[in-house]
Amino acid sequence: MPYLEELAKQQDIKKEQGKNFTAIHCGPFDQLEQYEFQHPLRKRLFKGKLFAKDHLGLTGMQISYTKLPAGTSMPFTHKHKENEELYIVVQGRGQVLVDQDIIDIEEGSTIRVDLDGDRCLRASTESDLIYICIQARNNSLNQDTFDDGIPGQSAPNWQPAS
Amino acid sequence: MPYLEELAKQQDIKKEQGKNFTAIHCGPFDQLEQYEFQHPLRKRLFKGKLFAKDHLGLTGMQISYTKLPAGTSMPFTHKHKENEELYIVVQGRGQVLVDQDIIDIEEGSTIRVDLDGDRCLRASTESDLIYICIQARNNSLNQDTFDDGIPGQSAPNWQPAS
Repeated sequence: MPYLEELAKQQDIKKEQGKNFTAIHCGPFDQLEQYEFQHPLRKRLFKGKLFAKDHLGLTGMQISYTKLPAGTSMPFTHKHKENEELYIVVQGRGQVLVDQDIIDIEEGSTIRVDLDGDRCLRASTESDLIYICIQARNNSLNQDTFDDGIPGQSAPNWQPAS
Repeated sequence: MPYLEELAKQQDIKKEQGKNFTAIHCGPFDQLEQYEFQHPLRKRLFKGKLFAKDHLGLTGMQISYTKLPAGTSMPFTHKHKENEELYIVVQGRGQVLVDQDIIDIEEGSTIRVDLDGDRCLRASTESDLIYICIQARNNSLNQDTFDDGIPGQSAPNWQPAS
């Protein structure tokens, strides 16, 4: 069994499932240090990192949540073979390194990185950096939004919610 | 020119580009009402919604940011033809409706919805709901993370950053 799938089975995350959805509740982002994983190649323990694809049963993307403590950096750079990556800053401040370029980031900053971009992130010395990373296969999207959506009910059935 | 691509050209968002990346800075999530779009089919103006694929040049996913004011709902449900959707709650509280199921959501809640799930979101009466939605093609991911990553530098070159 792949390592992340095995790890997901061990992690105790509140989950709800229905015919057409899976929902997980990861808790407040500033408590992400409750999640940890050991990199299978580097044998190093990372606190504050949650991979959610296997919890959710995703088939078109991987998603991870990361909290980097103030003044720390991901310890290595990396590229990708076939997946585009998107980094979304949720809280805090920091920087992204792509090849030789350094970009200052804060809440709302969103960065697409090509396969060949050699990337790394770090938190500022003054604040933790909390970000989401999405991986999806490069050039895999055929259509989206209005072209891909199918209109449903014009009056959503919110009953019996309070 | 597709409507969202045309809209992206009109929106003034701080952008940085390099050989292997595009970064945008959308601002704090609680100020998302600065972004608006008019639904091309429904002719209704939505405040607090930003589609970012065309700003970023994404090829494997669409991403949107939404701020729903307290006590309000998306006005219709929808399904999808070929894209899996992932909703990530960034701030606030609310609910997701999928078919007949209603799920309470808050910061850190993450929901995968299948193509056939007829979905809607609403904010609680007490707080705005701020969420991210990612669309990616169902079953398009071949591999991810350790299988797709290519190790780079073990000592990231953060120079000349302060």
